[in-house]
Amino acid sequence: MPNPTAAMLVIGDEILSGRTRDANMHYLAGQLTEAGIDLKEVRVVSDDHNQIVDAVRALSAGYDTVFTSGGIGPTHDDITADAIGAAFGKHVGIRQDAYDLLAAHYATQELDFNDARKRMARIPDDACLIDNPVSVAPGFSLENVHVMAGVPSVFKAMVASVLPTLNGGSPLISETLRIDRGEGDIATPLGEIAQEFSDLSFGCYPFQQNGQFGANIVVRGTVADRLDQALTRLKSALLV
Amino acid sequence: MPNPTAAMLVIGDEILSGRTRDANMHYLAGQLTEAGIDLKEVRVVSDDHNQIVDAVRALSAGYDTVFTSGGIGPTHDDITADAIGAAFGKHVGIRQDAYDLLAAHYATQELDFNDARKRMARIPDDACLIDNPVSVAPGFSLENVHVMAGVPSVFKAMVASVLPTLNGGSPLISETLRIDRGEGDIATPLGEIAQEFSDLSFGCYPFQQNGQFGANIVVRGTVADRLDQALTRLKSALLV
Repeated sequence: MPNPTAAMLVIGDEILSGRTRDANMHYLAGQLTEAGIDLKEVRVVSDDHNQIVDAVRALSAGYDTVFTSGGIGPTHDDITADAIGAAFGKHVGIRQDAYDLLAAHYATQELDFNDARKRMARIPDDACLIDNPVSVAPGFSLENVHVMAGVPSVFKAMVASVLPTLNGGSPLISETLRIDRGEGDIATPLGEIAQEFSDLSFGCYPFQQNGQFGANIVVRGTVADRLDQALTRLKSALLV
Repeated sequence: MPNPTAAMLVIGDEILSGRTRDANMHYLAGQLTEAGIDLKEVRVVSDDHNQIVDAVRALSAGYDTVFTSGGIGPTHDDITADAIGAAFGKHVGIRQDAYDLLAAHYATQELDFNDARKRMARIPDDACLIDNPVSVAPGFSLENVHVMAGVPSVFKAMVASVLPTLNGGSPLISETLRIDRGEGDIATPLGEIAQEFSDLSFGCYPFQQNGQFGANIVVRGTVADRLDQALTRLKSALLV
């Protein structure tokens, strides 16, 4: 059975302007690979209602699970909750349990629980909250979309809450073979072996070190024996 | 007149599996902002023909310019040239000028110019080559799509070749105001000022430092006087 599929939607002008370098995509990619879920596509869009709605609908329909990051804070550019609600035709309003969490948090911090902060309790109807152990304001899951914060520490904590609830497939395992020759030298036999082991995936990643060309061949699959067989074939064909 | 728009397509299983952390998106974002071109969307897809074709068509139709990275080397998983050809209904074959460049390069390197390396001369009909001063194998431009290597040093060199050929808009300039209060404290007045200066964009990026909450407010626009006015308003409203 093929692994379940996932997509990610990164929301934020600051990524697209180059001001901030996104860290969440790389983190999520590694976590999903370990969990046996295939990340198939990532999109990055700006803080634009229609762009978010269109992307959420396309990704939700195309993949088993969708993760979003960004746009769930208290400021005017935090529009993700409304866009997710619109994407699924759900009303968005203050949700009592989220409101109570935030009210208690700001009371202990002796900070004003003002209208802006109350916005963070606005959640689409029928969503489940995602716990935020870092800064309290919750994420939420609606249909197959998990809506999480953009701040990396909060994003990581939310991924840790969501991942155990998903059905993973077989974790992907990989083996790497380093070849101290240019990838052009090995491409033909590598392609033949990749065809022969069609249940595995073969990537070839060139590098240059001290003026010498080389490549890392990465074989990925879910059955350790098959990886071993492929590695044996690669070594006898390429390490000449 | 609004700035021209751009999108980017990152191609590669190694990004989606978490093996490699993409660096090209952040680099291109900064370069485009300096050039006055608005990067509106990024997609990351795997080494899958149909996925690349669909994404190229969607982005090419939706934005003024599209940049792709990855998948133009000599190995079996380098399928970008064929996918771009398919997206635009163009035949893909060995192109003589690219072939000659590569043949001369491998001759001086005393490396075999084998079939795998010859694949790097396969270019869609009617494309223009993009110079590769790092490792010779060219990128290419077809319609409004610029096809570049995934290796960051080569990607940067190709961006440097392509950018001067594009019509930029007004370079985006930005000002940052650091506020040593939680963003929830300032969200309401910030939202009002953002509405008042609707020709500018306002982002609010929270941070936590030594246990204290703060936020960087970034105002972006193309007219320096307007940025100064907005900054003056922000200071008087938020630095209390």
